[in-house]
Amino acid sequence: MQLGLSVSDSDVSSFTPLVVLELADDTKAEAITWLLNRIRDKQQNGGAELLVNQLLFPAQDDQKPNPNVFVVGSTLQRLLNGAEDVGLFKEFQDGTMRGFTYANRESFNDFNEGFLSDAECQYIIKHELDTLRAKNEEHVPGYPKLKLYPGKSVVRRLQSKGVLNQYFPLHNKEDLKRLSFSWYKKFKLSFQPLDDIRHYFGEGLALYFGFLEYFTFALVPMALIGIPYYLFDWEDYDKYVLFAVFNLVWSTVFLEVWKRCSATLAYGWGTLSRKKAFEEPRAGFHGALGFNPVTGREEPVYPSSKRQLRIYLVSVPFVLLCLYLSFYVMMVYFDMEFWAINIYNEDPSIATSILLFVPSIIYAVVIEIMNLLYRFAAEFLTDWENHRLESSFQNHLVLKVLVFNFVNCFASLFYIAFVMQDMVLLRQSLATLLITSQILNQVMEAFLPYWLQRRRNKKVHKRMRRLMGDKELPLLGQVKLETEMNTYLGTFDDYLEQFLLFGYVSLFSCVYPLAAVLVVLNNITEVYSDAFKMCHVFKRPFSEPATNIGVWQLAFETMSIIAVVTNCALIGLSPQVKAYFPESDTQLILIVVAIEHVLLAFKFILAFVIPDVPKHIQVNLAKLEFDSLEAFKKRVSTHFLKKEP
Amino acid sequence: MQLGLSVSDSDVSSFTPLVVLELADDTKAEAITWLLNRIRDKQQNGGAELLVNQLLFPAQDDQKPNPNVFVVGSTLQRLLNGAEDVGLFKEFQDGTMRGFTYANRESFNDFNEGFLSDAECQYIIKHELDTLRAKNEEHVPGYPKLKLYPGKSVVRRLQSKGVLNQYFPLHNKEDLKRLSFSWYKKFKLSFQPLDDIRHYFGEGLALYFGFLEYFTFALVPMALIGIPYYLFDWEDYDKYVLFAVFNLVWSTVFLEVWKRCSATLAYGWGTLSRKKAFEEPRAGFHGALGFNPVTGREEPVYPSSKRQLRIYLVSVPFVLLCLYLSFYVMMVYFDMEFWAINIYNEDPSIATSILLFVPSIIYAVVIEIMNLLYRFAAEFLTDWENHRLESSFQNHLVLKVLVFNFVNCFASLFYIAFVMQDMVLLRQSLATLLITSQILNQVMEAFLPYWLQRRRNKKVHKRMRRLMGDKELPLLGQVKLETEMNTYLGTFDDYLEQFLLFGYVSLFSCVYPLAAVLVVLNNITEVYSDAFKMCHVFKRPFSEPATNIGVWQLAFETMSIIAVVTNCALIGLSPQVKAYFPESDTQLILIVVAIEHVLLAFKFILAFVIPDVPKHIQVNLAKLEFDSLEAFKKRVSTHFLKKEP
Repeated sequence: MQLGLSVSDSDVSSFTPLVVLELADDTKAEAITWLLNRIRDKQQNGGAELLVNQLLFPAQDDQKPNPNVFVVGSTLQRLLNGAEDVGLFKEFQDGTMRGFTYANRESFNDFNEGFLSDAECQYIIKHELDTLRAKNEEHVPGYPKLKLYPGKSVVRRLQSKGVLNQYFPLHNKEDLKRLSFSWYKKFKLSFQPLDDIRHYFGEGLALYFGFLEYFTFALVPMALIGIPYYLFDWEDYDKYVLFAVFNLVWSTVFLEVWKRCSATLAYGWGTLSRKKAFEEPRAGFHGALGFNPVTGREEPVYPSSKRQLRIYLVSVPFVLLCLYLSFYVMMVYFDMEFWAINIYNEDPSIATSILLFVPSIIYAVVIEIMNLLYRFAAEFLTDWENHRLESSFQNHLVLKVLVFNFVNCFASLFYIAFVMQDMVLLRQSLATLLITSQILNQVMEAFLPYWLQRRRNKKVHKRMRRLMGDKELPLLGQVKLETEMNTYLGTFDDYLEQFLLFGYVSLFSCVYPLAAVLVVLNNITEVYSDAFKMCHVFKRPFSEPATNIGVWQLAFETMSIIAVVTNCALIGLSPQVKAYFPESDTQLILIVVAIEHVLLAFKFILAFVIPDVPKHIQVNLAKLEFDSLEAFKKRVSTHFLKKEP
Repeated sequence: MQLGLSVSDSDVSSFTPLVVLELADDTKAEAITWLLNRIRDKQQNGGAELLVNQLLFPAQDDQKPNPNVFVVGSTLQRLLNGAEDVGLFKEFQDGTMRGFTYANRESFNDFNEGFLSDAECQYIIKHELDTLRAKNEEHVPGYPKLKLYPGKSVVRRLQSKGVLNQYFPLHNKEDLKRLSFSWYKKFKLSFQPLDDIRHYFGEGLALYFGFLEYFTFALVPMALIGIPYYLFDWEDYDKYVLFAVFNLVWSTVFLEVWKRCSATLAYGWGTLSRKKAFEEPRAGFHGALGFNPVTGREEPVYPSSKRQLRIYLVSVPFVLLCLYLSFYVMMVYFDMEFWAINIYNEDPSIATSILLFVPSIIYAVVIEIMNLLYRFAAEFLTDWENHRLESSFQNHLVLKVLVFNFVNCFASLFYIAFVMQDMVLLRQSLATLLITSQILNQVMEAFLPYWLQRRRNKKVHKRMRRLMGDKELPLLGQVKLETEMNTYLGTFDDYLEQFLLFGYVSLFSCVYPLAAVLVVLNNITEVYSDAFKMCHVFKRPFSEPATNIGVWQLAFETMSIIAVVTNCALIGLSPQVKAYFPESDTQLILIVVAIEHVLLAFKFILAFVIPDVPKHIQVNLAKLEFDSLEAFKKRVSTHFLKKEP
């Protein structure tokens, strides 16, 4: 949003609407009045001091529209206060990034035009709404059961009890058009416009797209080296050894270098040195009322020992059970595979040769379904574990889902590689799994939701046109449309997909060098479909200030360590390598183990030697630190001069 | 120091002397006058605002005493300013640790009595002296060659050019007596008085003694389990496997738990959340004058590419050469060993059976000598690499010394274990090396310096008595004595010794379970001799604010990872385990490798699961963060209320 932008529907709201607030349609009037008052009230009185207006949709013949939809906006002044509140970092006049303060506002670059991006304004409004706290109210007016206590976040309480259906930021059609053109509509020989993406969707999402792009480029060398292996049908394991070693070193280097890239990006976006705000309890967190030991505020307290019990006595056994189930399904798959091969051997025809692929495809589909089902179970369980913070909820969820997905996707490959030791079947299974899961992913993730969304859009458009004739009411129409869009659930699934693809590429790279080619091709379309889905399929998400890709860095690094082990083992198993040690397996194994240890040690040393933050950013960060120290000293000494003359 | 303590020699100095400053005895008078003026000058004028007095030693018949010895002290007011300057953390009235500010001084516990410890006062004075900066002087008065530039630390310049011989804190005889009594003079069934040690010597040293104690206690279970193996001469490798597994898990757990202990200690001492001050360049750092990119100040600049060249083209090859030499010496040792065995076999007598031990003992002595020589070379090289910061100098030095010491001490054991595969010889060599190095260490480290010091003390005492008759001049005598004491070079050697002992215990634990017993015995005397050496052999060191044991944590963890590999290999080599797999070595090796991988994975998971900081300290730190955020917000909002009514 350019802050100077004029209001689009002056008859509906007298300010630029940024965030939509949808309450349940049977919300009691007194609760609404109270909420609006609290939102509009001055900050001194504990209000959020924001602008809020009701949107009234015209009644329709078939159904009554929800009357309780509101748009929230803010004055520039309030947004700037808020920017200081949330600790936003902006480019200072000397080119470094500094925490914005209202007092020094004129010293920041571009202060006078488009200083705060759309996403930032919406983030600030979200923060102000989230930290709108109950004062002396004992419950929400009109709802004696919705207990409040001083300091409780009003919005979280309304959300957890279903009074507040949702709140989400509005798209900005102008910006979106520009962004989607530069992002995926023109023929691309350039990089993605990461700064624009960040500008529109925030840092978290921009980092995902940055990673996606980086990862894809990083795979190109592997893909290029992999192609001749496929084309010339090299079965020479000497060359495979070379390929695998290159692969392992490369994956370490690129993961380390990514840290530097993400630090550079995060520094430029002002999130690297930004302090994390104090985290509110999640909306779903519940417990007996007590006192928070950190803030001293009254809030629900849930003993962590109980949580530990739930985790170790219920969640862990459940995950183990699921893993067992996954193994069981795998064994069934092998039975099917065996059965298909038998049929083919008895009667080799085209029909039976097609039958050969059926078990793999069925298994790939079943894997995807199991992953999906497990995902729901994991979310339910993690919710039931009752984590206080969203971040700890997310970590536990990621861990559960990662372990299961890893086993579910790769167990059969491990079995084929190390128990059956059948390299031909391994290559074939790997290809089938990879290709099937890619196709399924693209369909499930982008095209299916798009198709559903299109149908819905058409319906809404038609309805709106029928109702209002030719009157142009863009804001009403836009809110109506976006309210019914799906909610984007975060980058979790996108990262997970990349994680599994990375597994396909690295774990068995020396058996199927073409995997990198397939992943590169997949990711090129992935960029387009993900970009498209963000712009047109989902509600706009609130921006998420992120410094790095978080737990996923660890996940990718763990995968690359496992890849060292598997690749060394595969090479040790290959007949060509075995031929070098005709009389003694022992010597071969010892050499392979020694090489594996050297590679692992090398990985750790490399990770240690490559600094995580580039030199020039280190210097800038040190500068910031130094300046604040000096300012502190100056403050202290003037303080003393004043006091002790 | 209790700040109320009366001045001991009122005729010599009119304040409590804390730090001694010794200039070269031929320093020009104008330089001295200038320096004293700068030290005494007000802070507004860029001075240090400290108290300083000359100490005049009576002339002696045989030699002229150095006239340029000064004692430095400070007013309480100045020390409190300094405490805020260096960012000291103290216990607040609510029991948490907070950064001291002069404005809130009354809200800190014990403000009115003994608020600043002796070590803290001396640390503050050191800081103020170190940050005494040149103004417009182009050179030190009287020394046209000692160039200065605005912002250059005066003390560092004088030190690097040999005008300032040394500066060190004075002992406090009262406190020292009390400390040494509670530390090592009474019969001990209690822990060390860590708080008192920290109070007297600072956090860095107290953490070392804390670690020494913790490490010794952690070894007790290993020692207890190891004793029956030795007593009953168990050669049963089943039991050795159990012992080794216990050992590995235990070493992981205790290293992880140590992090929590050290966090607890550091929190209680106020160093955990203390911000690191901006680091000055080392005294020995040189380069062309340029501008520091961080501070913008003029200072020597040395391109890091040149440093990298020196490191990779000179230092690394040199270290490798030394490692080669160490291997060469090892091979000579084995020749000697062989020769001794031959002689014994030809003529088995008491004399020749003693001869059997001679090569090992010679080798152990040669190892110690090589370590010492290498140490000097490493220091010279690291100095020549011209690191800007003391911390990076230390890291490079530690790395060089660690690698060489590790190889030098353990290469022969690795050779015996995995090339010769002679477990009896391994056990014998391990015992000889361990015992010899322990004895050598205790002698070299404490008793030799003590003996030399005693002789010197007696001489000084006699001389002083002859000069002054029975006049009591405790300060003069004390300064004279302490000036001639050796300088304590930091905890490096002490940690290194513990690191190597840890190696002896863990690397081959399943072959020689008695090692833990020997190390425990060694460490019990080590506590005493180290304590004694700190109190009576060395000059008092300046306190070093430390949060943890730094790079040594990493070193110990690396050692425990290597230990997993060696122990698994040793068990795989044992004849009893081999007997389980009579027909195939391959299966045995695969199982051993699998177990090794599982153990390594388990180690990493354990390290990940055990939080580094105990819960209650996490809460306190979060509280501090939260309060400063709230205070910031309050400041912002009052600011706005004032500005926009």
